[in-house]
Amino acid sequence: MRSFSLTPAEIEAIVLPVQSAGERPAPITGLASLEKATQTDLSFLGNRHYEKMVADSGAGILLLPTDFAYTPKPHQKIFFVKDPSLAFALVCERIERLCAMKPAPGIHPSAVVDREAWVSPEASVGPLCVIEAGAIIRKGVILHAQDYIGPHVTVGADTELKPGVRILTDCEVGERCIFHSGVVVGSDGFGYALTNGGHHKIPQIGKVVVGDDVEIGANTTIDRARFGATTIGAGTKIDNLVQIGHNVTIGRNCLLVAQSGVAGSTTLEDYVVLGGQSGLAGHITIGAGSQVAGQAGVPSNLPPKSIVTGTPAFELQKAYRVEALKRKLPELFKRIEALEEHFKK
Amino acid sequence: MRSFSLTPAEIEAIVLPVQSAGERPAPITGLASLEKATQTDLSFLGNRHYEKMVADSGAGILLLPTDFAYTPKPHQKIFFVKDPSLAFALVCERIERLCAMKPAPGIHPSAVVDREAWVSPEASVGPLCVIEAGAIIRKGVILHAQDYIGPHVTVGADTELKPGVRILTDCEVGERCIFHSGVVVGSDGFGYALTNGGHHKIPQIGKVVVGDDVEIGANTTIDRARFGATTIGAGTKIDNLVQIGHNVTIGRNCLLVAQSGVAGSTTLEDYVVLGGQSGLAGHITIGAGSQVAGQAGVPSNLPPKSIVTGTPAFELQKAYRVEALKRKLPELFKRIEALEEHFKK
Amino acid sequence: MRSFSLTPAEIEAIVLPVQSAGERPAPITGLASLEKATQTDLSFLGNRHYEKMVADSGAGILLLPTDFAYTPKPHQKIFFVKDPSLAFALVCERIERLCAMKPAPGIHPSAVVDREAWVSPEASVGPLCVIEAGAIIRKGVILHAQDYIGPHVTVGADTELKPGVRILTDCEVGERCIFHSGVVVGSDGFGYALTNGGHHKIPQIGKVVVGDDVEIGANTTIDRARFGATTIGAGTKIDNLVQIGHNVTIGRNCLLVAQSGVAGSTTLEDYVVLGGQSGLAGHITIGAGSQVAGQAGVPSNLPPKSIVTGTPAFELQKAYRVEALKRKLPELFKRIEALEEHFKK
Repeated sequence: MRSFSLTPAEIEAIVLPVQSAGERPAPITGLASLEKATQTDLSFLGNRHYEKMVADSGAGILLLPTDFAYTPKPHQKIFFVKDPSLAFALVCERIERLCAMKPAPGIHPSAVVDREAWVSPEASVGPLCVIEAGAIIRKGVILHAQDYIGPHVTVGADTELKPGVRILTDCEVGERCIFHSGVVVGSDGFGYALTNGGHHKIPQIGKVVVGDDVEIGANTTIDRARFGATTIGAGTKIDNLVQIGHNVTIGRNCLLVAQSGVAGSTTLEDYVVLGGQSGLAGHITIGAGSQVAGQAGVPSNLPPKSIVTGTPAFELQKAYRVEALKRKLPELFKRIEALEEHFKK
Repeated sequence: MRSFSLTPAEIEAIVLPVQSAGERPAPITGLASLEKATQTDLSFLGNRHYEKMVADSGAGILLLPTDFAYTPKPHQKIFFVKDPSLAFALVCERIERLCAMKPAPGIHPSAVVDREAWVSPEASVGPLCVIEAGAIIRKGVILHAQDYIGPHVTVGADTELKPGVRILTDCEVGERCIFHSGVVVGSDGFGYALTNGGHHKIPQIGKVVVGDDVEIGANTTIDRARFGATTIGAGTKIDNLVQIGHNVTIGRNCLLVAQSGVAGSTTLEDYVVLGGQSGLAGHITIGAGSQVAGQAGVPSNLPPKSIVTGTPAFELQKAYRVEALKRKLPELFKRIEALEEHFKK
Repeated sequence: MRSFSLTPAEIEAIVLPVQSAGERPAPITGLASLEKATQTDLSFLGNRHYEKMVADSGAGILLLPTDFAYTPKPHQKIFFVKDPSLAFALVCERIERLCAMKPAPGIHPSAVVDREAWVSPEASVGPLCVIEAGAIIRKGVILHAQDYIGPHVTVGADTELKPGVRILTDCEVGERCIFHSGVVVGSDGFGYALTNGGHHKIPQIGKVVVGDDVEIGANTTIDRARFGATTIGAGTKIDNLVQIGHNVTIGRNCLLVAQSGVAGSTTLEDYVVLGGQSGLAGHITIGAGSQVAGQAGVPSNLPPKSIVTGTPAFELQKAYRVEALKRKLPELFKRIEALEEHFKK
């Protein structure tokens, strides 16, 4: 992070506090956790887990929830806000804008762009990118470096591809997406027919369609459909190292945490959350708003708003109960032996 | 998928039906699921799960299993075939051939090919590939773009590397393989000796040998052997984001589903299937034809044709039984308390 | 592995045996497992698991533990050493040095290096690398090919980046590190605030700081901090396809086996070992020297030297006991039914 400086008045204008307290004219020049913050830093209470650290924090400016009682130290400014995490994010956005060097539009001379590709003059194509015939790169798109855009791919306006992203033949990407390094969109689905003792490849001639405002984490892979499209709904956010199989349909505003996996032809309705390292079987539907715990394995359909854990996954509260009793099995066996002893007498 | 058109007679010549029904002279120009297919689409019943959707399907041509009783709608053609999935795959292959643009042989001027590498004049080396000294690229090979071929690597005839594949020093790849974007073959194995409180790297000076007709999914990693070779048998298919440790030996025609992992020095005999996110411990042998369920963790040897689930993995049918009883633990504890009450009386 | 030749005297000078036995003047020209080794190979007993194979091994030179009783065959030389694995590693290192072709210093003409980057004249920058403005590449660094070094990144002396590594804006890498192909350091953390029904991105404006002597496996991803730094301690070794979330702190000399994952803001103290496919929740601390079994899921803090397994993870010995009893549930239910029958009488 390069250097920046923001006055308390500028912070106030960004976070729009419900209330404020304390006096401090000096600007802040850094961000830090409650524990590590010093006089020149802004900090915040985003997670109640850390509320005991507020009193000892040396932060120059603090963002606290409106229902948190606190008297500022000398030279400390407090802004009470509805959602300190969001307020902090808005401050970060401002800093990002102050520090970030958005690459200028234009095509780097080392990029290899097919003459039958179309690149908006308002897009930026960085060094050593490859853009194949029939591809369309719309305005405001940033391809940072070493990206690969396959034949007939479309990349929507203001989408940003970090270095080393690969989008393969025919896939379509929406507007304002962010794909991190190593993302692969449009790899072949995993499909074979067993014939004469060998696995005969089933061609995967569909595509991937990614909606607007989708973010995809580093080294995540999304397979193209066998035919038709694998689709990722608008506003969905996917973390690193996630696997999305062929013909999967993901709704709007889902969250897929790192290393989770979705097998082929499964549907996630809107607002589904998959915990880290969780897995979904193929050909099932996960109802809207469902939450799948980390490492859970879901073998069959879930109704909307399900909350499940375990492999095979079942209802969270029941699973907790069963897990607690499972750990009492040594005691249980002893109790049964005692009962059996009674009978022998 | 670019546009295509196939007449019912052409489809018939591809799928070689046992029987057919219905009248329809018009060609189809698309493929779709039973649910989404319209008059101009071909569809098929590949999974009995969906058989209720056949009656309502608007598909112009349908591929159905021979034992499926069905009367075509007007202008609908039915081909009854032994294996609709395979028949459909054959149609897809034809379409793929009609639409695909196979790159022409030759080396793209932006590729960096060492003068001590040998590239067949019948191979195609795409933009921004790197080929190091001593590498051999045989006829019919396609390196799409941004691939890396390390020193002394051999790539067999007709193998296709999608953009961004890396094959490192000394590794050998067979014929007709397909490696998807982001594959790494020949990364160092994970081996250290603890000395003086630090982890001392054990050099990994072996290689990886990949047989013929192997497919490897996007961002999958295969480590080179500590010495000797990590080997992948002919006809084996590996999905995305799979990890293969050093000195692993994988037999012929195995299937490794996405995000599965195999620790060092383990052996998979022929026709082993690993479910998604499953893991195998190191230094064990999985007998031929065994099937490991998704998310299972296998700590020790399995005899041939084992079918296991869970962590630590055990026999599937028994595991289902235990899992069902586990969920009755709350009831069980109550029954025991009732028995204990009896005794107190 | 290219060809080499080492005499028994040269091997002796490398492994410094406590004792030796047998006569053999001829050099060895290969390395092999006990089972596969022939007269011209060196082999070793690194794992007691394989001790029955020593007697049948045809190896020309054998490295055995000092407490292993064995009489050499004709023309076989035995070196008894404290730690055969380490001794073997030292032999491998020698061979590696004999065979490896270290790239010469200098910048390949196809690399794209910003004029505001600084590259030591003693560093080697391979073909098609990109180095952005403000980056610093110190002496002895090797960027093999197609690597990406973002703005203001620092790479410490003698660090080696295999082909296709990406280190993003502001990140700092120590000395003597090895990063394998496909590593991404500095992808954005996964953080959103839900506002008006959409996930609002929380900017991730921190960095990643990697200590000295760290090795990172192929396609592993390490997210930058939301603010401040994600840190990887000196001497820590990370395997392939591992995910490290934002603001994670990893101590010194930890080992993270393949496909493990660490959620945001979690701390690993020194010498922690994470088994393959294990996962840690966010905002927790794993005490020094703790070991987490493969596929375990850790939801909360662990004291130092914990050894845990399962999801949710608990103490290993207890977990083994519970697991064994769990599999007796079918028997247990029968015993309870028998007791209940008694009462009915």
